[in-house]
Amino acid sequence: MEKITVSLGDRSYPITIAAGLFNDPASFWPLKAGDNAMLVTNQTLAPIYLQKLSALLSAAGVKVDQVILPDGEQYKTLAVMDEVFTALLQKPHGRDTTLIALGGGVIGDLTGFAAASYQRGVRFIQVPTTLLSQVDSSVGGKTAVNHPLGKNMIGAFYQPASVVVDTDCLATLPPRELASGLAEVIKYGIILDGDFFQWLEQNLDALLALDEKAMAYCIRRCCELKAEVVAADERETGLRALLNLGHTFGHAIEAHMGYGNWLHGEAVAAGMVMAARTAERLGQFSAADTDRIIALLLRAGLPVHGPESMAAEEYLPHMMRDKKVLAGELRLVLPLAIGRSEVRAGVAHDMVLAAINDCQKSL
Amino acid sequence: MEKITVSLGDRSYPITIAAGLFNDPASFWPLKAGDNAMLVTNQTLAPIYLQKLSALLSAAGVKVDQVILPDGEQYKTLAVMDEVFTALLQKPHGRDTTLIALGGGVIGDLTGFAAASYQRGVRFIQVPTTLLSQVDSSVGGKTAVNHPLGKNMIGAFYQPASVVVDTDCLATLPPRELASGLAEVIKYGIILDGDFFQWLEQNLDALLALDEKAMAYCIRRCCELKAEVVAADERETGLRALLNLGHTFGHAIEAHMGYGNWLHGEAVAAGMVMAARTAERLGQFSAADTDRIIALLLRAGLPVHGPESMAAEEYLPHMMRDKKVLAGELRLVLPLAIGRSEVRAGVAHDMVLAAINDCQKSL
Repeated sequence: MEKITVSLGDRSYPITIAAGLFNDPASFWPLKAGDNAMLVTNQTLAPIYLQKLSALLSAAGVKVDQVILPDGEQYKTLAVMDEVFTALLQKPHGRDTTLIALGGGVIGDLTGFAAASYQRGVRFIQVPTTLLSQVDSSVGGKTAVNHPLGKNMIGAFYQPASVVVDTDCLATLPPRELASGLAEVIKYGIILDGDFFQWLEQNLDALLALDEKAMAYCIRRCCELKAEVVAADERETGLRALLNLGHTFGHAIEAHMGYGNWLHGEAVAAGMVMAARTAERLGQFSAADTDRIIALLLRAGLPVHGPESMAAEEYLPHMMRDKKVLAGELRLVLPLAIGRSEVRAGVAHDMVLAAINDCQKSL
Repeated sequence: MEKITVSLGDRSYPITIAAGLFNDPASFWPLKAGDNAMLVTNQTLAPIYLQKLSALLSAAGVKVDQVILPDGEQYKTLAVMDEVFTALLQKPHGRDTTLIALGGGVIGDLTGFAAASYQRGVRFIQVPTTLLSQVDSSVGGKTAVNHPLGKNMIGAFYQPASVVVDTDCLATLPPRELASGLAEVIKYGIILDGDFFQWLEQNLDALLALDEKAMAYCIRRCCELKAEVVAADERETGLRALLNLGHTFGHAIEAHMGYGNWLHGEAVAAGMVMAARTAERLGQFSAADTDRIIALLLRAGLPVHGPESMAAEEYLPHMMRDKKVLAGELRLVLPLAIGRSEVRAGVAHDMVLAAINDCQKSL
């Protein structure tokens, strides 16, 4: 079992990573006998895990209710979040309840924001079931829902009480979802850790084969990197923005194509190549390093350009709604080397368009 | 000009109270030339103030957009809040924008929660235009929207950057709204300050006549009391719950009757009498003091019993969804004397029903 702590003073919390955690009620600390809880999950995961986890927690003396939401990024909305509030109020659950987010990033982000908002804040536990949520979205307290005009535009910084990563969940994950998670894994290597990027080049096949030892190390290293960044900059006033490499481009793809059509990691993969090409044009990144990124993304089964149907000009209106925009100026995360990156303001829009077109040439 | 500070460390902020504040852009500190802002108000107030304030701020170099919402408690919903997000994203406004809540408690609560949630938190300024919001809801950082199953069930603790109280606004306030505000004013006397209650008995006619000196003192004293309570207990783990005198009963009335039919202060007025009757039955409050409360509420033009059409039994399901409920047990704010109160758990439901019926006898 791997344990990492996200250090945020009196809001610090543990991340526990292991196979078989769903067999032991102690995994779900700080829940204890006599507590009330609401399990929030989706229609795809409910048949696989809900009965098992409900029974486990009930046997441990936790009173568990449940709410099942539709599955998909297009349901990460205020309206669907309202279904969680309705379920909580129908019982009713009080301010002393605990929400359990059992699912991928959509369930985690939506449930986290519901926990931040229900009665102005109740406790919640992240139980991420996808690789993407295990290495990224479940850690760090960014919660949100989407708006038709922008992804993650409505939300809160709100930390969970604990994060429970059962690596057994990955066995039932569709290959496209696994690849989407690997996009965020590769991102950590590019922005923060060249040695880890190299490790990924050497071990990608083991990860694709769900090798238990390789996967546990991979998730642990990503969570460590994220925990360090979040502890240093919880509310994204600086360093934390680096975690958004590829996301400004990627969010434009997701919004333009309609949420749920491109998976988040797929859009981020294409976006990272666009960021690398932008950095190349600025003379701060080598074509050889972009080629290493492209090769690794392709091995993971990820796209390295945007949708054919989306012209470069169609990215900018979406990108200008990015949360990093300040005083009307675009700010982009750009690599400086494999393992090092920066936030850069004042990149000319023409250069961004040219970099997007560089990627589309490979179509 | 009266100035009070709400002391919350690096989130401290000023409350400015005076006539004529809407004539001076400096009133809207910390807004300054070059800032972006979104004025949020309702259809009733827009024709009175919007053009004037927009022009004032534009002339001072602030780029101001505006969104106008329907007027009434029934519109304090997630769906209406979404209209604010849409307006912000259409421009688009970035994380460096400032929301200005120009209106009563509905606009203040909804806009505050929108500010807490937009891009995970942007700055906002409270500009309360009703007596109720000037003495209560604009101060202290409780923001929320309603759910069909309970009032203020979805929200955040999120402090404004400043509160701007122009007492000239009260001149256009309908008499029922003025009375509703006086209910919260009288509440402060009952729970915290017997001398202020006595001052109200002596000066209520001056307040009803909108005497400038009396009103400025009244608003200042209420804000002082609230600022002290909020500084001591921002997130309502103890003392702050006293501010909810009459609200557990009152919220039941508002929810049962449909939001907007009983004004908040009207429901709180009836609820305070119910709380007093409950305290009497517990032997901790005198009938003579309940009579003083009833007499003052009647002079202010407020109800002292619940709706005729609502049976005592119909209060409890709503009351059990109150945010003070812990481990399924009702907790009520009850007076101990005029000027002193407590939060009490474990009051028998039968006694609550009997106290509600005591009030209904006067029908």
